[in-house]
Amino acid sequence: MIRPLRIGLVGSGFMGRSHALAWRIAPLVFELPVRPEIVVLADRTEELAAQAARQLAIPRATGDWRDVVRDPEVDLVDITTPNALHKEIALAAIEAGKAVYCEKPLAPSAADARELTEAAERMGLSTFVGFNYLRNPMTRLARELVASGEVGEVWNFRGIHAEDYMSDPGVPWSWRLDPAGGAGAVADLGSHIIAMARFIVGPIDELVADVDTVVTERAITRGGAPVRPVEVDDEARALVRFANGATGTIEASWVATGRKMYLAFELTGSKGSILLNMERMNELRLFVKGQKAGREGYVEIPAGPDHVDYAAFLPAPAHQLGFNEIKAIEVKDIAMAMGGGPAFRPDFREAYEIQRVVDAILLSARERRWVSIDEID
Amino acid sequence: MIRPLRIGLVGSGFMGRSHALAWRIAPLVFELPVRPEIVVLADRTEELAAQAARQLAIPRATGDWRDVVRDPEVDLVDITTPNALHKEIALAAIEAGKAVYCEKPLAPSAADARELTEAAERMGLSTFVGFNYLRNPMTRLARELVASGEVGEVWNFRGIHAEDYMSDPGVPWSWRLDPAGGAGAVADLGSHIIAMARFIVGPIDELVADVDTVVTERAITRGGAPVRPVEVDDEARALVRFANGATGTIEASWVATGRKMYLAFELTGSKGSILLNMERMNELRLFVKGQKAGREGYVEIPAGPDHVDYAAFLPAPAHQLGFNEIKAIEVKDIAMAMGGGPAFRPDFREAYEIQRVVDAILLSARERRWVSIDEID
Amino acid sequence: MIRPLRIGLVGSGFMGRSHALAWRIAPLVFELPVRPEIVVLADRTEELAAQAARQLAIPRATGDWRDVVRDPEVDLVDITTPNALHKEIALAAIEAGKAVYCEKPLAPSAADARELTEAAERMGLSTFVGFNYLRNPMTRLARELVASGEVGEVWNFRGIHAEDYMSDPGVPWSWRLDPAGGAGAVADLGSHIIAMARFIVGPIDELVADVDTVVTERAITRGGAPVRPVEVDDEARALVRFANGATGTIEASWVATGRKMYLAFELTGSKGSILLNMERMNELRLFVKGQKAGREGYVEIPAGPDHVDYAAFLPAPAHQLGFNEIKAIEVKDIAMAMGGGPAFRPDFREAYEIQRVVDAILLSARERRWVSIDEID
Amino acid sequence: MIRPLRIGLVGSGFMGRSHALAWRIAPLVFELPVRPEIVVLADRTEELAAQAARQLAIPRATGDWRDVVRDPEVDLVDITTPNALHKEIALAAIEAGKAVYCEKPLAPSAADARELTEAAERMGLSTFVGFNYLRNPMTRLARELVASGEVGEVWNFRGIHAEDYMSDPGVPWSWRLDPAGGAGAVADLGSHIIAMARFIVGPIDELVADVDTVVTERAITRGGAPVRPVEVDDEARALVRFANGATGTIEASWVATGRKMYLAFELTGSKGSILLNMERMNELRLFVKGQKAGREGYVEIPAGPDHVDYAAFLPAPAHQLGFNEIKAIEVKDIAMAMGGGPAFRPDFREAYEIQRVVDAILLSARERRWVSIDEID
Repeated sequence: MIRPLRIGLVGSGFMGRSHALAWRIAPLVFELPVRPEIVVLADRTEELAAQAARQLAIPRATGDWRDVVRDPEVDLVDITTPNALHKEIALAAIEAGKAVYCEKPLAPSAADARELTEAAERMGLSTFVGFNYLRNPMTRLARELVASGEVGEVWNFRGIHAEDYMSDPGVPWSWRLDPAGGAGAVADLGSHIIAMARFIVGPIDELVADVDTVVTERAITRGGAPVRPVEVDDEARALVRFANGATGTIEASWVATGRKMYLAFELTGSKGSILLNMERMNELRLFVKGQKAGREGYVEIPAGPDHVDYAAFLPAPAHQLGFNEIKAIEVKDIAMAMGGGPAFRPDFREAYEIQRVVDAILLSARERRWVSIDEID
Repeated sequence: MIRPLRIGLVGSGFMGRSHALAWRIAPLVFELPVRPEIVVLADRTEELAAQAARQLAIPRATGDWRDVVRDPEVDLVDITTPNALHKEIALAAIEAGKAVYCEKPLAPSAADARELTEAAERMGLSTFVGFNYLRNPMTRLARELVASGEVGEVWNFRGIHAEDYMSDPGVPWSWRLDPAGGAGAVADLGSHIIAMARFIVGPIDELVADVDTVVTERAITRGGAPVRPVEVDDEARALVRFANGATGTIEASWVATGRKMYLAFELTGSKGSILLNMERMNELRLFVKGQKAGREGYVEIPAGPDHVDYAAFLPAPAHQLGFNEIKAIEVKDIAMAMGGGPAFRPDFREAYEIQRVVDAILLSARERRWVSIDEID
Repeated sequence: MIRPLRIGLVGSGFMGRSHALAWRIAPLVFELPVRPEIVVLADRTEELAAQAARQLAIPRATGDWRDVVRDPEVDLVDITTPNALHKEIALAAIEAGKAVYCEKPLAPSAADARELTEAAERMGLSTFVGFNYLRNPMTRLARELVASGEVGEVWNFRGIHAEDYMSDPGVPWSWRLDPAGGAGAVADLGSHIIAMARFIVGPIDELVADVDTVVTERAITRGGAPVRPVEVDDEARALVRFANGATGTIEASWVATGRKMYLAFELTGSKGSILLNMERMNELRLFVKGQKAGREGYVEIPAGPDHVDYAAFLPAPAHQLGFNEIKAIEVKDIAMAMGGGPAFRPDFREAYEIQRVVDAILLSARERRWVSIDEID
Repeated sequence: MIRPLRIGLVGSGFMGRSHALAWRIAPLVFELPVRPEIVVLADRTEELAAQAARQLAIPRATGDWRDVVRDPEVDLVDITTPNALHKEIALAAIEAGKAVYCEKPLAPSAADARELTEAAERMGLSTFVGFNYLRNPMTRLARELVASGEVGEVWNFRGIHAEDYMSDPGVPWSWRLDPAGGAGAVADLGSHIIAMARFIVGPIDELVADVDTVVTERAITRGGAPVRPVEVDDEARALVRFANGATGTIEASWVATGRKMYLAFELTGSKGSILLNMERMNELRLFVKGQKAGREGYVEIPAGPDHVDYAAFLPAPAHQLGFNEIKAIEVKDIAMAMGGGPAFRPDFREAYEIQRVVDAILLSARERRWVSIDEID
């Protein structure tokens, strides 16, 4: 009998539920070296936690995340709380010697992310950060097309993550707008496209950026008067230079009216190009030079069993994976790592590297100058 | 504590695994009146069954489906075997007084489907047939747009289900080609688009059809010589007239080179039109007459929490549901019905009605004439 | 100096203007063996004709098409009138020994089309029919892909021409609805998709069809009461069998709410497939079997200088040709034929063959049975 | 009889031919206050000019553009030469008191563009610059949607013009790479998207930019060794701030492997959003907030007679205009202005403003800092 991987889940919102689902799905479709079990759920109040635990079939519930962290039955602390709480919980988990799985963004600043990274590394603990879109088989295909040289040398990466959940000025103030969380759209969404850029192209060396806030005040509650100033960015954008010589742009917005899941990039290489857009996450468009005259164009490749991880869910192409299944791939990779398999990326160190780019964008925007990532500790 | 719904699963192929997943996902995301549990799995051999049961975390396994049917612990027999076996298993389950959930197509002929339907109705048993695409929130939206009158009177329905898994002449003979299963593409795929047409537009009164077989011989095993004649259709198509006066076409093909999941329709109404294609199953395109001049066009609506059942999985629009989650919606609706909620459709009777259309297509093609559905018992 | 090709244009509506434009554009972009000149324009009244001639820079105008037909200065009579007038004018032109260029559909019935064809052939006159979409370089590419065997044996053709200019019940009665014109949508639009099917796949042998009228009465003038019964089809559809063994469907509708230029087909072959849709007429989608695993999909090919006739207009791909330029290609091909170049198709005989299919659809719908094209004289 | 507008055309390449066509088409479809006539064509050699003139039906030809400029029969000098020659010819034309129509980019630097602008303004001459994509009815619709407030306050503009005609390192050195022409992709393509940004959003105040060259050496002739260093940019990108508070990005590339006509933007407003891409230039996608729940999405609007200038070419929507017809709209607007109608934009002054942005991008990239447009004289 394989040994259990006992998980303590913190948070039961959008991401908490998605993690809970993923942990159930993964062992049914993948052969895992450990048997994941969510043993306890923490939420803001005991009542909330109990209710969610009942629905999610988690045996125990608590209103205090500290109970999870210090629980001797827990091997892995899985953090899906609002961003501003990540650090405190993760640090406590590390101190308690637990492996930690944290939703992105890891921490409100690179300094905080580094503190977490170093703490975990000192303790020799495994860490995992939830940049789920990197697990999409089509994202993996993009990486493979670059790594194998099929699209040649990367010349340009034009990336964006834009949604519109803050486009309505009537959306009230919330934890996403808390500057203690570090930043706005660039942290919440920008971190995804930065993670993508690093995953597919490689490290960014330097950048110049601009940010702005278009809804400058919001109400405390929906329908109230807009009285609380918004101190974080609604939109951010940067010109970037990668270590390997590629150049590009990175953009983030949570006020992109009409956009719901526009995490997308256009990658240009010397031999071919790739278009990927999570609005249609089961497709990748690939152009390769040198086709027969008059037959040249982008190939629209549907996700299928020829792509990594897809066949675990479906034996037929174009039948489509959903968001939650991409999350299940993520927890599969975590379970593999926890069971002695290949190391998981992004870990805390990679999340720290991502956060350095976020911080560099904010610094560049503040000081209106090019910033080297090395300037960010 | 809510009472359990004890399921005996027969088959662990594509559909068996998808059902197993769905039964696990549904109670985590929906509030159900019963607690589904797969208690036993049957497959062709005990070994196969044991292996699949281990992976799918099903406590018991057997190499004989009869064990499942007569198991007093089983409330619902869930049949996902090759089509030709549906009837025998379902009849046995009915005789044993079990509720039955059967993958489509229910039976090789309308006569068989009627026999099953009447047997179940005589016993007062609940029955369920797995036409999962009807559960897609976008399919439900299409139905709602018609039912509410938003697109007016339905004038035309142009539907197709085309894939290419038999397009390669090197694909060997398999159970799908067994005439004992009743038919070819028209049964396997055509039944889906017929179900869709009935769900959205209503009953079909009469039709004229044509079928053909383009790969006329296949090998017994891959790589072998093509020696076994193919006696079922590779392609089928029909002109149809609906009871409500709408007209249209229905097509099916499993040799549609390049198509992987092309279950699609174009519905024209007096006030608007709908385009839906499961290749991009998280989108529906809607045209409504009477927009401002110069602003008129199809709206591309992304699936989101405003659509039925979506919010159980994801709180944000366009984040995308997958095939297996649509299946989870189906089993949710079955659990609801088993727990005293609204009746489930398509039940065996509806599957019989769908099969009558399949049979009418075959009869019309054979006799080269218009056929009334009433001619099919 | 190359000799002139003196054209007498009849009609100055949508098509008349498009022809006038095309005759001017063609010699500027193509090397022609003759020098086209529109020398006279006829319209319903002298006043209308004079006004249009002024705008279109045509030297002479007349209110009587007979003046054009008997004009010794005219080499080619170009007919763009309402369909019901085609026959009378074309016959008169033939009798006068003129070459004739007629907009589609050539005549209200196959019998009429045959009469015209035989009259012209007896006189040894060149004839040309304006099925312009056949001149789109992407249509030509589709034909080449079939003819060269790149997509293998043709298994299926699923074609449609649907627009919505009659979808509004408030659109009053017009010449398009005159049964003397022969038919409705199947003649006006269906003829285009039939021409396309024949051009790309080949002759149709037999078919079974259905037609219907959804707006059964219309007003005489916009805003009036709907008092005049509609005696022609609003929609038509047929199952077809081609001489080469391919099968398929052909559909036509002028009440396809929301559709503006939906002349489209999906062609399935044993080695590949083609998708073409005039709503995006500068693109063709091609699937070819046997690509590398995981790289398979439809290629979206943009029209460019590698495709026939494109480079005459633009040296760069994807810069896009318009409807009127496709018409210019058509008149170029007519000028080539008139100057001793390759024969032009569709000529009257081909238009007669197309009309036989239209008539077969009407006969089949009326008699509710399969009809061989040979039944239509 | 309306008076003629006598045009002297300089150049008969891609643009020269497109202009020649446009001048013929415009008077056939629009009611013009003047009668355009191309009276003379100049090209590099008399032979080239004579050959092109014959094809384009231009009565006179010359191998020296000075003949055109000083020709008393010429009212308007139309310049379509390589970029580096624009200035000399335009200045001579201005000195000769001619109206001038020049292809974009007007001049290799803002200083040159200003010199031309001031010279023309001193002489009181009309000037016109050929940024043809601004004439696309869908571009005009975008502008109208912004100007009318339908999409609210503009928050963001994300624009790009990317093609791949220099992506192949085997493409030899050409006039486009001559630094005397001022710049590379940013001048050749970037000027189009800058013109678009200014047309739709308004003036840009400041920016920070980056440029790079990915093919650093090219052969003198195709097939030769790559010996000539490339001194201009292959790619350029900038973060921009508009005077009205909007922000955004502007990108240009002529090495965008796979892209053929990707002049596109995403405009986000407080009430709606617009997507426009010249790869499908007959469509615009519009999102407007506040639609009924569950019916929200981008509307795909096909170009049609409800949009400005379309109806002159075609009476039916979605039948599609081509590149050359957009050019015909441009010359129509020039003819209108020459005949006393509304002033034409972009004139030389607007082209100077566009060039200031180009120069600001180059300066910013060189000095690696934010640049105010005011710094560029």
